[in-house]
Amino acid sequence: MADGAVLETRRGGCVRSVGGTVSFSASGGHLPNEVLAQAIRELSEWRGTGQGVLELPFTGPAFKDLQAGAMSSLRALLRLPEGYRVLFMQGGASTQFSLVPMNLLRGKETASYTDTGYWSKRAIAEALRYCRIELLPPHGLPATPGTAYLHVTSNETADGWQYREFPDTGGLPLVADMTSDFLTRPIDVSRFGLIYASAQKNIGVAGLTVVIVREDLLGGAHMLTPSAFDYRMQAQSDSLYNTPPVFAVHVAGLVFAWLLAQGGLESMQAAARRKSLCLYDVIDRSDGFYRCQVAPEARSCVSVCFRLAGTALTRAFLGEAESEGFLHLAGHSRVGGIRASLYNAVSEEAATALAEFMQDFANRRG
Amino acid sequence: MADGAVLETRRGGCVRSVGGTVSFSASGGHLPNEVLAQAIRELSEWRGTGQGVLELPFTGPAFKDLQAGAMSSLRALLRLPEGYRVLFMQGGASTQFSLVPMNLLRGKETASYTDTGYWSKRAIAEALRYCRIELLPPHGLPATPGTAYLHVTSNETADGWQYREFPDTGGLPLVADMTSDFLTRPIDVSRFGLIYASAQKNIGVAGLTVVIVREDLLGGAHMLTPSAFDYRMQAQSDSLYNTPPVFAVHVAGLVFAWLLAQGGLESMQAAARRKSLCLYDVIDRSDGFYRCQVAPEARSCVSVCFRLAGTALTRAFLGEAESEGFLHLAGHSRVGGIRASLYNAVSEEAATALAEFMQDFANRRG
Repeated sequence: MADGAVLETRRGGCVRSVGGTVSFSASGGHLPNEVLAQAIRELSEWRGTGQGVLELPFTGPAFKDLQAGAMSSLRALLRLPEGYRVLFMQGGASTQFSLVPMNLLRGKETASYTDTGYWSKRAIAEALRYCRIELLPPHGLPATPGTAYLHVTSNETADGWQYREFPDTGGLPLVADMTSDFLTRPIDVSRFGLIYASAQKNIGVAGLTVVIVREDLLGGAHMLTPSAFDYRMQAQSDSLYNTPPVFAVHVAGLVFAWLLAQGGLESMQAAARRKSLCLYDVIDRSDGFYRCQVAPEARSCVSVCFRLAGTALTRAFLGEAESEGFLHLAGHSRVGGIRASLYNAVSEEAATALAEFMQDFANRRG
Repeated sequence: MADGAVLETRRGGCVRSVGGTVSFSASGGHLPNEVLAQAIRELSEWRGTGQGVLELPFTGPAFKDLQAGAMSSLRALLRLPEGYRVLFMQGGASTQFSLVPMNLLRGKETASYTDTGYWSKRAIAEALRYCRIELLPPHGLPATPGTAYLHVTSNETADGWQYREFPDTGGLPLVADMTSDFLTRPIDVSRFGLIYASAQKNIGVAGLTVVIVREDLLGGAHMLTPSAFDYRMQAQSDSLYNTPPVFAVHVAGLVFAWLLAQGGLESMQAAARRKSLCLYDVIDRSDGFYRCQVAPEARSCVSVCFRLAGTALTRAFLGEAESEGFLHLAGHSRVGGIRASLYNAVSEEAATALAEFMQDFANRRG
């Protein structure tokens, strides 16, 4: 079972013809086949050490090398400029909703947020426990003087909305939750004060959160911030303040290396565009059978959200899709409809096969 | 490589004769061979779903069943009384050092702690950021009225000190960091208000923290507690407030089932006693060649700490041990000396082989 070839059969190109399945789940957790196969091998034996990767003591040189290698690959992928630190943390993006104000308010009482959908609302609700919130439109109007930072959600998985161009904040630190589209496109990190992303979409497996922070923003965390969640503390300890999530860090390193081998983030961006366009094409040419409520210029390349007319048809679509091996296409529970998440590990063949299924379903039921 | 038989050869009984290795690392990360083999299989395919376990959406029924099953096995193992909740969290025990006062002070300004070694000092230092600390001797004297809880460290990995009997607190909630000896012996949970343990010693892999909390202690967290770390919030959401560390939860469930199949915590306690006694026997019969500074009645069954005379001899011991396949025996960096961690996944054969090596080394160098 721990075999790349078997996995290829299970998830590869001609999905329906081999009775395999593809998950389009927004939760993520997919890994590229080669990465999963290598992760499985190294659970038993890591680089001739006689130990599996889980057994490497996190205080020893082998794990430190492994983690430093993963961070170094990430720096290369992002072409990270000088003056930024990479932190590996726990707790997911939801914890960052608290940690951003706890670490970055630094005595200020107001922070600016844009509300672009479900996940920015979640970030705002949590931040409201720490400070006053100034809401800004997604583009165009600057924050008023004296706010601590501007927080944006790069991609809204529940709504299918994505920032193409990030707002210009002048000198204000721009903070981005990039959980769902991190590593699916190149970004100019120098425009950001802080970027965070939990791992289970495009970095690897749940349990790891990547934080990229400009060095001048380290320090000054609220005194009640748990030490393990003080960005400065983690930066000073090279993200080894306490036991890191060893397996998730290892998998992240494998994914970063895989991305570099695939041609880096430009390749991922091109693939994400092709994958999403083949779905949007079917939607736009369906004469209203499928409806996408997001304006074309803000449509997400990784979260394609659309609706059919009525719950009966929606349920029929989901049922047929599942029986054809296209799993987890139901929209977010608060939003409904259909959602296809096209993270990096979802192949172009899988997206094409889904588009063909959608076209076929529309032909039969439209 | 993902083969139980291969692993058996690598770590099993006649360690030295097959050139295998055994890790005695305090960091943990060992898994029983059968558990590792099953975890590896299920990374590719989980119960005929056509998906690997990492791909199960955490909001779907398959993962909810998996997590509920793990919690249910843990309840059975601990014979958990009514009125307690099991929480699966992230952040490790170090994060609980903050979360315990953030959640349990509930308006009080003092908490009581016992200082029994390195890890209780760490817990105390972190708690001091939230409240006044009343230090108590490990046994005998009650807390003064009005403190919020009494915190103890069940086992001190750096010092080799372990609570045999826990203090009687009257009505005060007893809080225990059981990270390093959780599931190595039966405990009467009804005596505790809260127990926490990070997973990498005896529960599974790093990235998961188990919290067992009496229901009347839920609620009243400090208003600045991140929602993901509010015990009540996690209890209300069945530990699905945000994406859980899927792989670590899965492995924990496998370990709990394995422990039940081994005869439960009484069996683990008997094994831990035998494993530690065979090392303490060599120490005590070595005429001072090996010295254990812990009083016999407080010696740990899972963290056997001892010293040799001088750094040259210590270094020689560690070097020979490593070349014989006994890995990671160096004491904690702040303490020095030797430390053999005997978590549940370290076999009795491995402990016996280490005892034989120690005896042989003493015969040659004593």
